[in-house]
Amino acid sequence: SLNNSIEFGKRGMSLEEELNSSNQYYLSRGLGVIHKKPTPIQIVKVEYPKRSAARITEAYFRQASTTDYNGVYKGHYLDFDAKETTNLTSFPLKNFHTHQITHMKQCIDAGGICFTIIKFVKLDRIFLLQAINLFDYWDKKDNGGRQSIPLSYFEEQGIEIKYKLAPLIPYLSAVDMIM
Amino acid sequence: SLNNSIEFGKRGMSLEEELNSSNQYYLSRGLGVIHKKPTPIQIVKVEYPKRSAARITEAYFRQASTTDYNGVYKGHYLDFDAKETTNLTSFPLKNFHTHQITHMKQCIDAGGICFTIIKFVKLDRIFLLQAINLFDYWDKKDNGGRQSIPLSYFEEQGIEIKYKLAPLIPYLSAVDMIM
Ligand SMILES: [Mg+2]
Ligand SMILES: [Mg+2]
Repeated sequence: SLNNSIEFGKRGMSLEEELNSSNQYYLSRGLGVIHKKPTPIQIVKVEYPKRSAARITEAYFRQASTTDYNGVYKGHYLDFDAKETTNLTSFPLKNFHTHQITHMKQCIDAGGICFTIIKFVKLDRIFLLQAINLFDYWDKKDNGGRQSIPLSYFEEQGIEIKYKLAPLIPYLSAVDMIM
Repeated sequence: SLNNSIEFGKRGMSLEEELNSSNQYYLSRGLGVIHKKPTPIQIVKVEYPKRSAARITEAYFRQASTTDYNGVYKGHYLDFDAKETTNLTSFPLKNFHTHQITHMKQCIDAGGICFTIIKFVKLDRIFLLQAINLFDYWDKKDNGGRQSIPLSYFEEQGIEIKYKLAPLIPYLSAVDMIM
């Protein structure tokens, strides 16, 4: 309901935190094993103090070569990225990196199920969009196509996911619809 | 052949490097998408110098909650860990952490294919062992069972993987045999 939706929106969790919490729920119920991958870091210097943990004193963020989330559900390999936008009417494609699209295409070729979860933060609406639909826009954007995916496209071709109590974002129910 | 085996052994690559190279080969041929997960890091302090990349100045290694490798092959979810031992006659179970075993059990319950790749470094021999065989030993080790898996068990129940030129470790051929 709208009330629930507003209430959850007030928690101040990021989409990533909401998904991590949902994944924890799915894991605890034996429904699926999906984890966010750690942020890739280039480690340059490490100190090994006596009697305490190794301390990294110089490191840099590296560009990820894959999407953020993957795992297994009902025997299927799932792979997806999650993105928020504060836009009201469309999702800007510049939120994706070429390597993420490439990775999703590779996973689909190997038989995986790939999609993206997009949150329109100011609308408090979340959609699952299949990767093939994302590719449609992505592949046209450098050939005179749109630089963003309109909200109406998510409404027509995506699957809207409504917040629940547990899991917070029941996205595996949406995955059931594309399997 | 023995000659090849000795030659590859001399390269001085770790098992992880050998597997990363093999995964790169599989990826480039469109045969499978398997990546090593980044090492999980707890970031404490980050500096943002002008005109240069953000620099992490305090961070710590975190315990991983999953195995090191996962991905998709012929539509199947693969999940595995890779371990080296300098032992000559058995693989010590203390090389595994409880959370890795727990994670593999969860993945199998969700329909994934789980295994471990063990290298006996001094013998230059590599085996794929299915997770269920690993669990057999793991679950008995705290109830008076052995603390290690004998080499003979790998020879009988595992699949030996011989080095090749490309991919260096053709482990997906061994996966074909357990699918
Ligand atoms: Mg993301
Ligand atoms: Mg390992």
